[in-house]
Amino acid sequence: MLNKKFIAVIGSGEATAQEIKLAEAVGKEIARRGAVLVCGGLGGVMEAACRGAASENGITVGILPGDSRKAANPYVQIPIVTGLSHARNVIVVKSAQVVIAVGGSYGTLSEIGHALQNGIPVVGLQTWSLSKDNKPDSGIITVDKIQDAVEIAFSLIDNSK
Amino acid sequence: MLNKKFIAVIGSGEATAQEIKLAEAVGKEIARRGAVLVCGGLGGVMEAACRGAASENGITVGILPGDSRKAANPYVQIPIVTGLSHARNVIVVKSAQVVIAVGGSYGTLSEIGHALQNGIPVVGLQTWSLSKDNKPDSGIITVDKIQDAVEIAFSLIDNSK
Amino acid sequence: MLNKKFIAVIGSGEATAQEIKLAEAVGKEIARRGAVLVCGGLGGVMEAACRGAASENGITVGILPGDSRKAANPYVQIPIVTGLSHARNVIVVKSAQVVIAVGGSYGTLSEIGHALQNGIPVVGLQTWSLSKDNKPDSGIITVDKIQDAVEIAFSLIDNSK
Amino acid sequence: MLNKKFIAVIGSGEATAQEIKLAEAVGKEIARRGAVLVCGGLGGVMEAACRGAASENGITVGILPGDSRKAANPYVQIPIVTGLSHARNVIVVKSAQVVIAVGGSYGTLSEIGHALQNGIPVVGLQTWSLSKDNKPDSGIITVDKIQDAVEIAFSLIDNSK
Repeated sequence: MLNKKFIAVIGSGEATAQEIKLAEAVGKEIARRGAVLVCGGLGGVMEAACRGAASENGITVGILPGDSRKAANPYVQIPIVTGLSHARNVIVVKSAQVVIAVGGSYGTLSEIGHALQNGIPVVGLQTWSLSKDNKPDSGIITVDKIQDAVEIAFSLIDNSK
Repeated sequence: MLNKKFIAVIGSGEATAQEIKLAEAVGKEIARRGAVLVCGGLGGVMEAACRGAASENGITVGILPGDSRKAANPYVQIPIVTGLSHARNVIVVKSAQVVIAVGGSYGTLSEIGHALQNGIPVVGLQTWSLSKDNKPDSGIITVDKIQDAVEIAFSLIDNSK
Repeated sequence: MLNKKFIAVIGSGEATAQEIKLAEAVGKEIARRGAVLVCGGLGGVMEAACRGAASENGITVGILPGDSRKAANPYVQIPIVTGLSHARNVIVVKSAQVVIAVGGSYGTLSEIGHALQNGIPVVGLQTWSLSKDNKPDSGIITVDKIQDAVEIAFSLIDNSK
Repeated sequence: MLNKKFIAVIGSGEATAQEIKLAEAVGKEIARRGAVLVCGGLGGVMEAACRGAASENGITVGILPGDSRKAANPYVQIPIVTGLSHARNVIVVKSAQVVIAVGGSYGTLSEIGHALQNGIPVVGLQTWSLSKDNKPDSGIITVDKIQDAVEIAFSLIDNSK
């Protein structure tokens, strides 16, 4: 039954118009290619990605921080109610085989850290870049185009995991 | 989009033949009536309920305790990878609008406690019964028949939440 | 350094006068014998136990459900801020080598379930009693006197764990 | 009772000799100034910081990812057993009023993200630096000297929280 691929889209709940546009296109493309979209279930980038996926009849999973499914954006089909506050970020990335970051603030940064710590690849569109002790870190695969982000994300999924 | 009902089936990963039979029938009936089945994603009662739901083309969600989706039973369609160990029990019940307990050991007891603490009704088949300071507690709605369990469970779902 | 014993006292945030009295005496005795008191950090039984421990200069740890240390009762010395809501119950019991339940509602029931699932002994004073499928369950060691509760609790600590 | 200050030291479990030296000195200085040291409880930077704090008779709290207190480094006095795997990172930072990062890998990055998302200041020694969409981010307060790190950390503690 586990034949579906799972891809997380992460980004801010308060996103710019440009980020919204990117996230919606990414969600659309993920669904068009048959993968399940996982996200934090709220607004901004999360809602845009879900809206895009829904427009292609994709499956959308929202891992919610609070205690009520009512907080989910209207495009979430499978709301997971955690009550864990920020600790739900860990579940968003662990439930995915690859993560696409669109913009994002510090919560997104925590998700990038958790993903990379767990060996889950991260593809970034207009998101964080990292260096440590003055050396650039190559953990985030930065791309400029939506199509490239999704193409690379699918190519990085390791089905043995 | 949130028009689906979500029902958790909880019970032991090492279940008796009788519990397996009950759980499978419960899962089947949940799916037949169009609700999404939520469970802990592993074996025993969880697997039986998923198998039942899958036989009626139902949607099955498995909230996994470990770090790998590979631990999910073969009938889980939406594996949620938490890495939280026993704390994932909280998410199983919070993600449901009503809980059906089939048999069950101490992990199931913790889920019953979390459900009742959160005002999520619990219907029980051959499961725990509770008393406090020598007075019986009516939190768990105990039934004898599968059909009654599912009937009552659906009737207890509060769509305003 | 890990030479201290850790004992959790669990019970309701809204306790009866009798439960408060029991919890305070239990906390006092735990501290008098040199163990660290672990609890959920809030009011009712938790606060009473901490107050008792503090009166004997004991160490008190409060595992808080919310995002602010300010929610801790005034007798908590080591507030642990989880933001996990009810999932923090798991941490309260896992951080202890033995658990003493004083009264308690459904949250306490979830903690009893988590403790017994993890092989952590539970001693009960005026708390839940359990039966499954009509057979009494001996998981909770029920006692009537405070002194017995603490005596038995210390005797059950397995220092190899 | 909540008159103690709480400071987290975060960093890799597999640290360089230089990071170990820094972490030990930081832990020592934290304890010397009377604050409680919070960390992830394991080896590397965490152990070094605890060893430093212990040498000044400081209090050390280790928020452990696994199910056993035995995994704590020998300088942890208060082991908190979460069983939450990487989600325990959230608790390490939320339990602190300020965070000092020494070196660190992706787990540390997740902690930095969680801290900044929660408005908890982060002081960094030889750690990550961040930019977003090609603009440097000023979230992490980077310093070169141990003494400055601790001095600034104490000055940033907001006792109203």
